[in-house]
Amino acid sequence: MMRIALIGTGNLAIHLVHAFETCNATQLVQWIGRKNTPPKQNLNTPYFTQFQQNIDVDLCLIAVTDDAVSSIAEQLINSDVLVAHTAGAVSINELKSIKRKGIFYPLQSFKETIPVDWSTVPICIEATNSEDVELLIKLASQLSENVHQISESQRLQLHTAAVFANNFCNHIISISQNIAAKAALPFSVLHPLIQETFKRSFSNKAFALQTGPAKRNDTLTQQKHLSVLSEEDAELYRILSQSIFNTHNT
Amino acid sequence: MMRIALIGTGNLAIHLVHAFETCNATQLVQWIGRKNTPPKQNLNTPYFTQFQQNIDVDLCLIAVTDDAVSSIAEQLINSDVLVAHTAGAVSINELKSIKRKGIFYPLQSFKETIPVDWSTVPICIEATNSEDVELLIKLASQLSENVHQISESQRLQLHTAAVFANNFCNHIISISQNIAAKAALPFSVLHPLIQETFKRSFSNKAFALQTGPAKRNDTLTQQKHLSVLSEEDAELYRILSQSIFNTHNT
Repeated sequence: MMRIALIGTGNLAIHLVHAFETCNATQLVQWIGRKNTPPKQNLNTPYFTQFQQNIDVDLCLIAVTDDAVSSIAEQLINSDVLVAHTAGAVSINELKSIKRKGIFYPLQSFKETIPVDWSTVPICIEATNSEDVELLIKLASQLSENVHQISESQRLQLHTAAVFANNFCNHIISISQNIAAKAALPFSVLHPLIQETFKRSFSNKAFALQTGPAKRNDTLTQQKHLSVLSEEDAELYRILSQSIFNTHNT
Repeated sequence: MMRIALIGTGNLAIHLVHAFETCNATQLVQWIGRKNTPPKQNLNTPYFTQFQQNIDVDLCLIAVTDDAVSSIAEQLINSDVLVAHTAGAVSINELKSIKRKGIFYPLQSFKETIPVDWSTVPICIEATNSEDVELLIKLASQLSENVHQISESQRLQLHTAAVFANNFCNHIISISQNIAAKAALPFSVLHPLIQETFKRSFSNKAFALQTGPAKRNDTLTQQKHLSVLSEEDAELYRILSQSIFNTHNT
């Protein structure tokens, strides 16, 4: 049984609390947040506002906002326990002079209200010594079938790729939803197209799947599209179209 | 049995030939293209380089590039048959003085080599008289369970929304694939994130799902991401991030 302390009360932290409480191989013995009461009251984990040196743990997991990792790490410097953070774009060196440093980075977008199937979530592992790599892989494998040991540089690139795949695509889908709503059309009309767009990219180079007026420089159709867009959406349309054209015609 | 003439030999046309040949309620009696031989040799439909006035049809379907619709329509002006085109962004008036004009617009991205499940493809219908609306709805319903009668203005907006959902998302996925490849990571690491991104947008407002450094104006993380991007991808990153920030902070 792996004894875990978890620091943080955000979207990811709450999903991790649920995961560790449900998992047979883990025991969450400390949950630590800034507020005096936990954000969820119906959980079984003892909640504190500071890391408890007197409660033994095998791993202290820091699941807080990126810029808070380093100050939290400061408070754990004297501990001999393995300390890992969960951030995609934060260096392992932000854990400062902690002796046993690691990374436990789950690659998914976490929203408190949306359930997560942990078995499919890729968990990316790094640690400064090989025993701790093993320990983190063992833990990650209890939650997920999708565990990867990657370098710091790979993690930053993966996080960047994830911003494109999730943040940017979601923003564009949001614009698409707004256009459909303005046309008094249910967004469900676009579901099959969207489903295919992403399904196909799983087994093909998206570059080879590209179609549409931007790729073939069909300015007449582009003008028609621009005529139905707000100025801000039209600007994005022009820039994305130019980027597609440049990518496919140079 | 609906007798159909199909004009065009592109990706959509080839998928329509397969669909009409397979469907029990349709008979494809003419397939018309510019080239002397059809692009597919193993099909059962008679192929011509011009519309055959002496072969009776109930519907002539024009599935060609947008800017060719009007010149093809010119050649059919003297016919009494219903003529429909398949383009999202071309006005029904491009069918000129044809007496019975219609639209049969399948909302999907068609690639010759990628199979299509027609039963899920939304087919959007328009026609200048109500009997022809009924006829096109009847035909569309033979192929798909997802048939909509929409106006010309709705169709243009839908086509624009589809450019965002498919063309732009695909381009962004392509950049994401390139970043993963450069990091020597399999793109499959990002599949669960992408799957969730789109699945969630089917039952939520994507606006409410937005996360990431752009939304919270986390410039430190953004700088790290920019450091791993090519100049062109970095420019797109900046513009998309600014658009997300503007959308969520005004």
